[in-house]
Amino acid sequence: MSLFVRTLVRKRDGAELTEGEIAEFVRGVTDGTIPDEQAAAFLMAVCCRGMTTAETASLTFAMMRSGETWDLSRHGFVADKHSTGGVGDKATLVLAPLLAAVGVKAGMMSGRGLGHTGGTLDKLEAIPGFRTALPRGDFDRLLETVGCALVGQTDSVAPADRRLYALRDVTGTVESIPLITASILSKKLATGASAVVFDVKTGNGAFMAETGDARTLGRALVETARAAGRKASGWITAMDRPLGEAVGNANEVEESIRLLGGEGPADLRETVLLLGADLVVAAGLEKGEKSARTRLNAALADGRALDVFARLIRGQGGDSSVCDDPRRLPRPVGRRTVAAAEGGVVTAAATREIGLLAIELGCGRRNKHDVIDPASGFRIHRKPGDVVAKGEPLVTVELGPTAKPNATFEARLHACFTVSPAGTPVSALPLAVERL
Amino acid sequence: MSLFVRTLVRKRDGAELTEGEIAEFVRGVTDGTIPDEQAAAFLMAVCCRGMTTAETASLTFAMMRSGETWDLSRHGFVADKHSTGGVGDKATLVLAPLLAAVGVKAGMMSGRGLGHTGGTLDKLEAIPGFRTALPRGDFDRLLETVGCALVGQTDSVAPADRRLYALRDVTGTVESIPLITASILSKKLATGASAVVFDVKTGNGAFMAETGDARTLGRALVETARAAGRKASGWITAMDRPLGEAVGNANEVEESIRLLGGEGPADLRETVLLLGADLVVAAGLEKGEKSARTRLNAALADGRALDVFARLIRGQGGDSSVCDDPRRLPRPVGRRTVAAAEGGVVTAAATREIGLLAIELGCGRRNKHDVIDPASGFRIHRKPGDVVAKGEPLVTVELGPTAKPNATFEARLHACFTVSPAGTPVSALPLAVERL
Repeated sequence: MSLFVRTLVRKRDGAELTEGEIAEFVRGVTDGTIPDEQAAAFLMAVCCRGMTTAETASLTFAMMRSGETWDLSRHGFVADKHSTGGVGDKATLVLAPLLAAVGVKAGMMSGRGLGHTGGTLDKLEAIPGFRTALPRGDFDRLLETVGCALVGQTDSVAPADRRLYALRDVTGTVESIPLITASILSKKLATGASAVVFDVKTGNGAFMAETGDARTLGRALVETARAAGRKASGWITAMDRPLGEAVGNANEVEESIRLLGGEGPADLRETVLLLGADLVVAAGLEKGEKSARTRLNAALADGRALDVFARLIRGQGGDSSVCDDPRRLPRPVGRRTVAAAEGGVVTAAATREIGLLAIELGCGRRNKHDVIDPASGFRIHRKPGDVVAKGEPLVTVELGPTAKPNATFEARLHACFTVSPAGTPVSALPLAVERL
Repeated sequence: MSLFVRTLVRKRDGAELTEGEIAEFVRGVTDGTIPDEQAAAFLMAVCCRGMTTAETASLTFAMMRSGETWDLSRHGFVADKHSTGGVGDKATLVLAPLLAAVGVKAGMMSGRGLGHTGGTLDKLEAIPGFRTALPRGDFDRLLETVGCALVGQTDSVAPADRRLYALRDVTGTVESIPLITASILSKKLATGASAVVFDVKTGNGAFMAETGDARTLGRALVETARAAGRKASGWITAMDRPLGEAVGNANEVEESIRLLGGEGPADLRETVLLLGADLVVAAGLEKGEKSARTRLNAALADGRALDVFARLIRGQGGDSSVCDDPRRLPRPVGRRTVAAAEGGVVTAAATREIGLLAIELGCGRRNKHDVIDPASGFRIHRKPGDVVAKGEPLVTVELGPTAKPNATFEARLHACFTVSPAGTPVSALPLAVERL
């Protein structure tokens, strides 16, 4: 019996694995000496038996060490942020330049859309010319000169995660808190941030729909990041409705620009302030949340945050004139309004389905080779708790040049909004559900 | 998400799978459309979550239908037997000709040695010329003319089992009662026996060392075989010491010939009678166990059983003169006696280790390409409960022409026997632990 089969048997039988056993697994996954069938059996055993905090930390650190690790110490304090993903979540686009504007360096490594959720990289690439695949040298230069950078994961960072992620996708082992924790954190820790703030979504548009699961994941993320010597904090926030009004790519950039210029939807602003204040305090620039929020609000109000965003866009090869004139972003070629069939109060939004319909419209990829239509998307006019009269718009569909919604599309989108008689109690989540 | 990933997620989360989901899995394993990593994840999920009786039956039947199924109805009643494997277990060699001698057709499909246990096919092949790979036509002819046949599994029977078994071996998913049940029974059911008796071993030389596990497996085997419309019964028997005196290949054939001629060790005879009586009753030849044993004993005493064995050997291409003169079997070229260092009572035999030492001596294969030395083996002189004087033999090592035991071999074999001061209580299992 090979040593690794012993490890598989031990995990199968519920034993706590040693750091050495877990390191052997990650080494074998990285160098290919552990074949897919053994790695798959390991992942399923972890799903079924779970992992202790110590095992999760061992897995995270071993995956982090499977590739290049970045030393950002010459930049001093560098902040990062992670969201577990949602619909309309463009907080990173605002947060990175806003933090830089108030003196907190923000070096953020972001992802693509996954499942029904959008991806920061896909949104940024709606800006003409914007490049998210930057050499390490450009990342350092941007941190020095602009104070922030928004880049994609490179192949050299946490290669074990790429192989494991591809396997998890086909083996029914995606939904595992230790595996999710290690996947997220191995990349965050490898890219060297001093502090990370986690935005763990909950509700019907989140991967962790139940608040209890979100709490378990959030605590694992915060504890494991701290065990790695990083500052870490986080919030569970509501994803039982889209965040902000825009869902898509170009329209989410436009909404981010509005917020950076001091306008934009209140829920998006509140999310950015919640997460940003934690990082301003972690950086030691303010003592408390209240003064941190004041500092952040000032940079939104006086144009500094938007100015940093323009410089960030130029630094990453993009056309920064979109900041002055968002109409230079890809624009829809048609619009259709989905209106309420009856008046009343919106009691629920099927957020996951809204996200899936957005993907269907071209806002994301169903297959690896799909091409995104950045001009497509939705404008959400009503959310749970809002009153709507019969015939008033619930959502506008923005049609990019390649969008081809089928005959049932609008009916399916309409069905995502539950309109109940006026006075029906609405049980929407508070935006900030709880601090982790 | 592919349909099969949904099945993986359902099993992972503890759901009971439908017959259709399980059939889809077996189909995909057989035709190769389910890749190794998905099959491995399924196997691990089954290990962790278990299977209900209905799921186990669905898996068994689907695996049975993955290849050729034999219709033996033209032979009338045909008996089969399955042992979960042990050290010195040559019961099949005696049982098949004995049953034929009393009028019960016995068509038995046997296996090779596995882990620390010996294999019926390997033992039979110690007989010069004996062939275990027989075309289906020869199998039928032997059942007609001799009344019994002892053959190996062909590639066309239960091909899904072969692929799954190879995967289980490398993914730490061997020890699962539903998977073991389906593996054993899919083959037994495919080869069309009317009745099967199960000999489930327990004790330190069994795969199911704990009696509770042996009982769970045994009941699953009996219930699932009955669900397939076959007669089925079984016993849990002791494997906390080798069965009989000979452990090896040629020496086990010689011991079988002695028993077929009315001699041989009492524990081997008792095991054969226990299993044989069930099949004589199942065949309807006798009403009760007592008269069935009388019938079997008579055929051992008067030479009929040995005569059938000689005809079976000839029918399968072997040299049947070994029945008259067992010295024509491959013979050891040297012997070494391992004697007791102190007098007292043998309180335990490390049966699994004895089996592993036999493999090391050449009685079995550690790797697929190893060649067996049929003349090598052990003669066990003392078992738990036996008194031994200082210097008296515990076991004799029989060295075949290629046996090359290393310097520590005898010391390690000696250490397999625990000799305690006379009067120490011995807690050996009864030979027949319980009826299933």
